[in-house]
This record gives sequence, C-alpha cells and structure tokens, in this order.
Amino acid sequence: MERITAKYYIETPNELEKAAHVLAGEQSSGTFVKIPGETEELKQRFAARVENITLLESVKEPSIPSNKVVATSYHRANIEISWSIENFGYNLPLLLSTLQGNLYELSQFTGLKLMDIDLPPSYEEHFNGPRFGIAGSRKSMDVYDRPMIGTIIKPSIGMSPEETAVLVKKLAIAGVDFIKDDELQSSAANSKFEDRVDAIMKVINDQADKNGKKVMYAFNISDELDNMLRRYEYVLKAGGTCAMISVNSVGLTGVKKICDQGKLVIHGHRNGWGMLNRHPLLGIEFTAYQKLWRLAGVDQLHVNGIQNKFWESDDSVVRSIEACLKPLFRGETLLPVISSGQWGGQAFETYSRTKTTDLLYMAGGGIMAHPDGPAGGVMALQQAWEGAVNGLTLEEARHQYAEFSKSVQKFGVKA
Amino acid sequence: MERITAKYYIETPNELEKAAHVLAGEQSSGTFVKIPGETEELKQRFAARVENITLLESVKEPSIPSNKVVATSYHRANIEISWSIENFGYNLPLLLSTLQGNLYELSQFTGLKLMDIDLPPSYEEHFNGPRFGIAGSRKSMDVYDRPMIGTIIKPSIGMSPEETAVLVKKLAIAGVDFIKDDELQSSAANSKFEDRVDAIMKVINDQADKNGKKVMYAFNISDELDNMLRRYEYVLKAGGTCAMISVNSVGLTGVKKICDQGKLVIHGHRNGWGMLNRHPLLGIEFTAYQKLWRLAGVDQLHVNGIQNKFWESDDSVVRSIEACLKPLFRGETLLPVISSGQWGGQAFETYSRTKTTDLLYMAGGGIMAHPDGPAGGVMALQQAWEGAVNGLTLEEARHQYAEFSKSVQKFGVKA
Repeated sequence: MERITAKYYIETPNELEKAAHVLAGEQSSGTFVKIPGETEELKQRFAARVENITLLESVKEPSIPSNKVVATSYHRANIEISWSIENFGYNLPLLLSTLQGNLYELSQFTGLKLMDIDLPPSYEEHFNGPRFGIAGSRKSMDVYDRPMIGTIIKPSIGMSPEETAVLVKKLAIAGVDFIKDDELQSSAANSKFEDRVDAIMKVINDQADKNGKKVMYAFNISDELDNMLRRYEYVLKAGGTCAMISVNSVGLTGVKKICDQGKLVIHGHRNGWGMLNRHPLLGIEFTAYQKLWRLAGVDQLHVNGIQNKFWESDDSVVRSIEACLKPLFRGETLLPVISSGQWGGQAFETYSRTKTTDLLYMAGGGIMAHPDGPAGGVMALQQAWEGAVNGLTLEEARHQYAEFSKSVQKFGVKA
Repeated sequence: MERITAKYYIETPNELEKAAHVLAGEQSSGTFVKIPGETEELKQRFAARVENITLLESVKEPSIPSNKVVATSYHRANIEISWSIENFGYNLPLLLSTLQGNLYELSQFTGLKLMDIDLPPSYEEHFNGPRFGIAGSRKSMDVYDRPMIGTIIKPSIGMSPEETAVLVKKLAIAGVDFIKDDELQSSAANSKFEDRVDAIMKVINDQADKNGKKVMYAFNISDELDNMLRRYEYVLKAGGTCAMISVNSVGLTGVKKICDQGKLVIHGHRNGWGMLNRHPLLGIEFTAYQKLWRLAGVDQLHVNGIQNKFWESDDSVVRSIEACLKPLFRGETLLPVISSGQWGGQAFETYSRTKTTDLLYMAGGGIMAHPDGPAGGVMALQQAWEGAVNGLTLEEARHQYAEFSKSVQKFGVKA
C-alpha cells in the first residue's frame, strides 16, 4: 500500500525517539489512555510510522517559549513520519489535518516545522495539478526567451476603473507582459470589480488587436465562493486570461474549486505567508507549502525576490524558486512569481543563483517610477535580464543600457 | 464612513510610530517609492490609519530571529490600525488579506500578532453568524442545565462502520449528548463516509425513537467542496443534526459555503491552530480568530481545556472561552468546545474560572476508559459538573459520587 511521508524539523526537551512516536500516535490512533478496540491489526494498517530520525544540535533555550516545559537542553532533529494513503485517500483537507493538524499543539515539542512532503505515484492520477504552469503562462503571454515581466497596480487601492485603465494602457504600450491587481484590491467603493474588468479588458483587447500581444491581467477574484465563480466567468467572458487568488485567505477548498474550472491561469498570491513561515521552527516550509497549492491547481505562486524589502533571506528565496521549478507530476512545474522591491538590479544575482529565466519577474515602483515612465521601466528590466543571461555584471550592464542605467541611478543606491 | 479596527501586539527595532505607519502604508497604498496617481484625496479615503500606540517593554533579543535586522533594543507595543470599509466591503477573504496579509513579512517587525478585530454595525446586517450557536446546540441535544457532554470516537482511525456503530450505541445508551469523528477520520479505506453515516444514524435514530433524545453526531465532512456539499446532504437526509469541519484545512470560503446551507449545526475543529498561535509574538490570537469563524457561520469551536495535554496555558483557555461567550451580533454566541485530556477532574477549575455551563465538554479516553465503561464515564462527568456548580471541591465530589470517584482513581494521578 502506498504511503505519504512528511519531513519535519523538530525541537524537543524529551528523548527524540519518544517525541517522534508521540507525534505519530497523536496523528493516527491518538488518545492518552489505552482503550478497547485498538487491536494490533488496526495499528499495523492505520498507524503512522516513524521512518527516520536524524539528530542535529542541542540548544539551551526553547525556540518557542512554553510554561509547561522546564528542561536544560532541547534537542533538534529532522524526522520523517509516514501514513498509509488508506487513512485519507485523496482528500486534501484530510491530508492537511493529518500532516499539519494537532501535532503543532503537542507540549512534547518546543519547535516543529513541516519541511517537505513525498507524494505517492497514484496522486498523479487523481490530481490535475497546474493546468497552465510555466508553459501555459508563456504561451498566453507569448514570451519565450526571457522572464515574463510584470507589474502591480499601485496605489494598491483607491484608483477608479477609468484611472486604472489609463495606467494599464500605458503599461501595455510600454510592453509589459503581465499586470496584477494588488491583493488589497478586489471590489472597492470607487472601483467595482465588474467595472474594472470592463475598463481594463477594453484597453487590453484593443492593444491585442493592434499588435497581437495580449497582456495577462490577474484580476483579484478573491471573495466568497459564489462570488468568485461569478467573477471568474466575468473575466473569461471579457477575454481575460488570468485570475488572482489570495490562497491563504480563500483557503484550500475554495482555491481548488476555482482552479478546477480550468480555463483561466491562476495567479496564487501567498499574502499571510510570513505568519506561516517566518519562525525557523514553527509552521511550514515553502517546499511543502507549494506542493499543496500545486495539488489544488495553482499555476503561479509568489516567492518574494532577491534583496526583497521583506524579512526573507535570499537563500530562502532561491530554495523557493528551485522548489517551483522541480516537476511534481507529468513534468509540470509552477511559475515562481518574483516580487517585493524589485527593479532589475536583482536580475544579476537572481540569474546567477538560479540559472533560470522561467520566472514572472514583477516590479511595482521599479517600473512605474522609472525616470522615463513605465516604458523605460519595462525596457530597463528586459535589459537587466538580457545582461544577466549574457553574463554581464550590473556595472557592465549599466554602461551598455541607457534605460537600465537610469534605474540604477534611481533605485540602486544600495546596489 | 464605518471603519474596521485591528489590534496588534508588535515588536520592532525601529521607532514605534514609524513602524506602525509602515504597516498602515503597506496594507493600504503600499509601494516603496512615491508614484504618480497617489493624490491626497485618495490617501484620505483609502489609507489605513494608525489609531493608537501603547508602548510596552523593550527587550534585548528579537522574538523572531532575523538576519536583516541588527539592533540592541526591540520595542514592544500594542497598536491599533483602522481601515474604511470602503476598501473591501463585506468580502471576508479581502478582510483577511488586509488584516493579516503581507504585514507579517515586513522586516520592520521582529514580532507581530493580530489580537482582536472591531467590526462595524453594518457587518451585523450582512452576516448571519452562527445559525445555531449555544441556544441551537442545546435545543438539538435537549440539554439545558449543565454542559453538554461529548466524546470522540477513538481510535481516531481504523474501525469499521459497524464497529463504530456498536460503540456509538454503547455511548448513546450511556447518555452522552454529543459524539464526534476524529479530525483524522473522514472516509478511510475500511470506513467509507456514507457507510459510516448509515450505520451510525441507524443507531442514533433508533435510540431517539426509544427515549426521545437524539445524540448529536458531528460527521467529519471535510473534503473538497463538492464532496462536502454532497456529504452535508447525506447527513441531513439520514437524520443527522451536525457536520464537523476542520476549519483551517478547509479554509474560509469553503467553511462559509457549508455554513450558509443553514440546516446542520457546524462543529468547527481548529486543528493546525498551534501553528497560528503558539508563538507569543507571531500569528493570531483566539479572540480575533473566533470572530472570523463566527462571520463564516461556525456554531461550535474548539478551545482546548483546563489542564489540557497540549502546550496551551489555562489562562489562554479561559480567555478563549470568554471570547466565545461574548455576543458578536444579535446577542448570538459561539459554543466553546472543551477537549484534550479531559476527564471531569478539570470541571472544578473550569467552572470556578468561567462561571459558565455553556460548554460542550468533551472527553475521549476520559469516558471510554472509565472502569465502569462509557456509562460510568458519562455519569462521572455529569457528577463532576454538578459538584462544581454546587460549589464542591474535587475532593468533596469524589466522596459524594461513586462513578466520579473511580475517575479520580483512574485519571487523577496528578489532581
């Protein structure tokens, strides 16, 4: 029988072997006293198994403070626990409750993070995964030999549909491949969702008629389920190619239901992610996280960017990009969305560390606030990436490209 | 115009006023450079406002480690930020993305927790809240003068529908008010959901025909959306009164969609909660969390219990119970579900600290492993609560009640 294996990074004041077995027990048979009805046969078939324990360092203070634990030493380890798929089959919420449910509450742990998940082959038969992913996104935007260049409508919230459309037109003419709503914008008092779709798609369709290139616009359809389905249809009817969902806010079953419609590229925004990952010994690591959203069918997922304005380290960003690019099923991959304080200057380090252009490379202020306007901003980003792929340094590229040079002057103070 | 106010507990190496304004900026206008189109009028209408900052202590080490921050002092504070409801209206996922989105990623903070949310009066008109809550749960179980007593099917997973039904029959005869699936059980290889409903509801309906009391059974319908809706109907058709959802695993939009069906009591299981709350300066506090699930329509929500087997402190449990019992809209309240290592011994402390019997008081092993069997276990719990409400101490109650006395002997080693 197939098994699903989860990898955890843990910290415990207890004996490691014992702590791992408490976790496995809690997440399969689970109660605090031996009860009638729990036969050996049952245990063999449905019990979670401790597959591996790799001892790491010990520390003097617990990573997560606890009133209930008093100890002089806390032991860290990587552990692997497996479950038979007979326990939950292909039920994603049940998989989640099994892999990241009550185990976070166990007082036997002063730190616990879900690092990775190994899915069995039969999951490939049961889940479509991303319908579009990298290949479908490239095809829709007609961009093949460089990262797709995207931007975010800013200010995040406040502009009318008409003002937004004027900006979209400017960006489309400037040659941007992708534009997205901010995650704070969906349907505001002065910018109803449908009005925004009408105004924006008119501009995008007109521009596509003129030059054959349809900008991908990710409309933020995040809302209650029926509204999301209505908005999805509205975008589709208007000729749109993409819908954005705040995956943590909407939740797994809502996201899966939308992805299952299968006609629009799904742009997954991970806002709230810091809460799930920011502590080194609590929550979930991106490698595991992105697999869950791929099972749900998300095509594009945010990963922050090199030298981002947020807390996340460059090493973590690189690991996230690599996770997205690793095939899960049928060779399909997830398009990593690079953003947060990007302006082109980071293209060199990004390419040097990942050796890929399979990216949706997003800049907000980095495009909009370029001295030559959005056209200059888009051009500067394309130049930066051309330079990076050709092995130029940032300094070499700034001398070769006029628009990129202006970006360096404006945004590159710390570069 | 109405505003929504969120309270955060924060820690920052920066000047507090500045850090609070970075948060407000990121969660409304949001970019790292000044851009054209951002007028003062726009800002006034849609910008988040810093309403209050209450300085607390400073510490020498950051609560959450960060490579990007080097400082000698980290300042803690309670802050309040408000948004106009013009920004997101009654869109719950947008509310979530606004209140707990990218802000967790800001490097300006080395700790950030959403503590509470103040909702404006018009939210009452737009959201039904729990359809059943405490009053509806009591009516369905026909229990008015004491806590509702519940139990969990254990082992969590592994029993056949028939074996489960035998156990349910024993529990129903024993006089239990409520039984639930474990969150790890929904439809396993040897226990299909529908078979389980058939077998269990036959027993429960038979028993109700005999003595007029229908045990509330919370079937775990957690799954993808269409399956959940199918299972919901299946439970309803079989005469069931309750469905259980793992709220974090299913997600906000899926949970809301199920609650909106309005015919079954919704038992909200919060497994995964430790990940969101366990760190004192990361995530979300229960006071805020339970309001979101009330908006979605959940009727019953887990809060752990006094002297639970998990990490959570008694103080935190008491605060959670109080939060559930505080009316949100129309005087409606949320039924707190007490569980984790409960056996009746905790009734005294629970009652003394909360002065309420508006509880669903759950014991797993505490009922099943009672020396006299489940009937003794249920009776012992009722006795413990009767004693607690009458002002007896545990010691006094053990001398008064035979079954409770046996519980003390079996489970009360530490009491």
